Amino acid sequence: MNSTLSMTELEDRVQRIFLRAGMNAMQAGPLARVISAGERDGCKSHGIYRIEGVLRTLKAGKVSGTAKPFAEGADNGAIVRVNAGGGFSNAAFELGLPVLADRARDLGLAAMVVNDCAHFAALWPEVEAVTAHGLAAMVMCPSYATVAPAGGTKPLLGTNPFAFGWPRQGQQPYVFDFATSVAARGEIELHRRAGKSLPEGWAIDADGQPTTDPEAALGGAMLPFGGHKGSAIGTMIELLAGVMIGDLTSPEVLDFLGTTTLAPFHGELVIALSPERFAAGRRGDPFARAELLFEAIQGQGARLPSQRRFAARARSQAEGVDLTQAELAQLDRFLALGLDAIA
Amino acid sequence: MNSTLSMTELEDRVQRIFLRAGMNAMQAGPLARVISAGERDGCKSHGIYRIEGVLRTLKAGKVSGTAKPFAEGADNGAIVRVNAGGGFSNAAFELGLPVLADRARDLGLAAMVVNDCAHFAALWPEVEAVTAHGLAAMVMCPSYATVAPAGGTKPLLGTNPFAFGWPRQGQQPYVFDFATSVAARGEIELHRRAGKSLPEGWAIDADGQPTTDPEAALGGAMLPFGGHKGSAIGTMIELLAGVMIGDLTSPEVLDFLGTTTLAPFHGELVIALSPERFAAGRRGDPFARAELLFEAIQGQGARLPSQRRFAARARSQAEGVDLTQAELAQLDRFLALGLDAIA
Repeated sequence: MNSTLSMTELEDRVQRIFLRAGMNAMQAGPLARVISAGERDGCKSHGIYRIEGVLRTLKAGKVSGTAKPFAEGADNGAIVRVNAGGGFSNAAFELGLPVLADRARDLGLAAMVVNDCAHFAALWPEVEAVTAHGLAAMVMCPSYATVAPAGGTKPLLGTNPFAFGWPRQGQQPYVFDFATSVAARGEIELHRRAGKSLPEGWAIDADGQPTTDPEAALGGAMLPFGGHKGSAIGTMIELLAGVMIGDLTSPEVLDFLGTTTLAPFHGELVIALSPERFAAGRRGDPFARAELLFEAIQGQGARLPSQRRFAARARSQAEGVDLTQAELAQLDRFLALGLDAIA
Repeated sequence: MNSTLSMTELEDRVQRIFLRAGMNAMQAGPLARVISAGERDGCKSHGIYRIEGVLRTLKAGKVSGTAKPFAEGADNGAIVRVNAGGGFSNAAFELGLPVLADRARDLGLAAMVVNDCAHFAALWPEVEAVTAHGLAAMVMCPSYATVAPAGGTKPLLGTNPFAFGWPRQGQQPYVFDFATSVAARGEIELHRRAGKSLPEGWAIDADGQPTTDPEAALGGAMLPFGGHKGSAIGTMIELLAGVMIGDLTSPEVLDFLGTTTLAPFHGELVIALSPERFAAGRRGDPFARAELLFEAIQGQGARLPSQRRFAARARSQAEGVDLTQAELAQLDRFLALGLDAIA
């Protein structure tokens, strides 16, 4: 039998788990919010499932649970710089966001760099936090070397997510957030556990040959989405959100961690743009014009991205979040044992 | 028998064609340079082949050949705004570029908006012009509604090119530039002329059903690359480089022109980022670190984008550009007849 928790109850429970594991409130709060948001939106892969990975990374000493993020270079033009101090990205993002929003409104566009952070979350919570300020957002970060560049044979690029958001008045924003690999690594793992073959085009084996065997794929490399085009975007993300911001690229992250079972440690790039500033002096309200585009997309039966997630959110907000007894027992165990819950 | 022209001879000949057709020097010069650069790089689809389309658009009155681009909003934070005055984008881009470069170096990143322009060129010449200033660049623009959004049935998005560049010391930059449709419209046209079937996944017919018949595809819609992911990027480009900058979206362009045989009229967005500013205070030289990434890509047998183009450029610069007698005769005809060469 399932139990239903309100969002407040869920956030509180997750936060207590992180505090019990020795994290400070500055880290635990934002982490609890982003994990609860995943669960709320029906993204099980970014919900409470992630708690174990957070604790594992903490126990392995590959992230600081007591870090205090800090701003760097107070007046740095259109660049807002936040250092996570070796902690998770989430607290650093929350610290920098108001400054980013001010700067983007002031200059028309601005970028936030988060350095020295562990990063395990989806990018859509950050995209939505920027759109809530009436700004458009592009967000990207590397991960660890698990994807072969198009035409290549070995893992080099990360699954490097790319996310974008556009604010909409009186409703949820237009948001997409996807891996630049064909599939997420977790999907290959799920196929392996279920004993199922992979679709063609997802992966290559250790010899660089196409494979549909999940085991061979995990020992080989994933492929970028859209062939050489997706590969190029994945490379752009390594350059902009790794090299350019002076933080680790996906191969460097894998070297640093030595495994893909811990949260990757790197940086993140958030670009915020002000439609009001960009459209000033031109005909038409950009927000009203965007609605015409969305109507035309939906009018021909195509879907806007994130709609399933927003529907799940509406349900969760009305009815609470459903957890199974096994999930609740796991939360209780984490709360009772702290880091000792991790083998 | 072919003839070989130096780049100077080719540029001069193309420029004289545009002057003869009634364009001013401010429009004709940049157009001649970008078309000659296409020919030089072996991109026949963006070389002298484009002259006819330029003249056709001019004759149809859908672009001004005597426009003078002008800067707008002199001090506008990180936004550099150039109005093409109804002329081609190229002159406007050249006008705004030095300001964009200064602003990006000063603030860390900056955006150039080109408004009210006809646009027919590849984006890589602009990307390379930005990287020549030691800056990274993202460039995007809409085109006309010929691509169905993923899950849709009708043309709505454009082939919306997305391009990126990263400067490299002592060698050609890292550059990609691709349509966010699976294929360019011209490729479908080439299949039609050759009586060949299209590969699967390129297009749908007027009823929204998958088709490999080029005729049915031209009457239906092209598909975005990479399924819903490419569709999302194409939509982002409509929003940022159409709606946000107060210029036409792809469906609006098609309404305005009533045809896809003229150069589309819309705007363009160029974002320039300073790796030096972004990396300041962090470990490692971003340009040296990028080379490690490029070596790792090439070291496993994968190619960097644009390498074929750069090889053709090296040949053209050493040996000149080869044109067939038919191509030369066509240039002579344009020069003799001006706009009367267009039916």
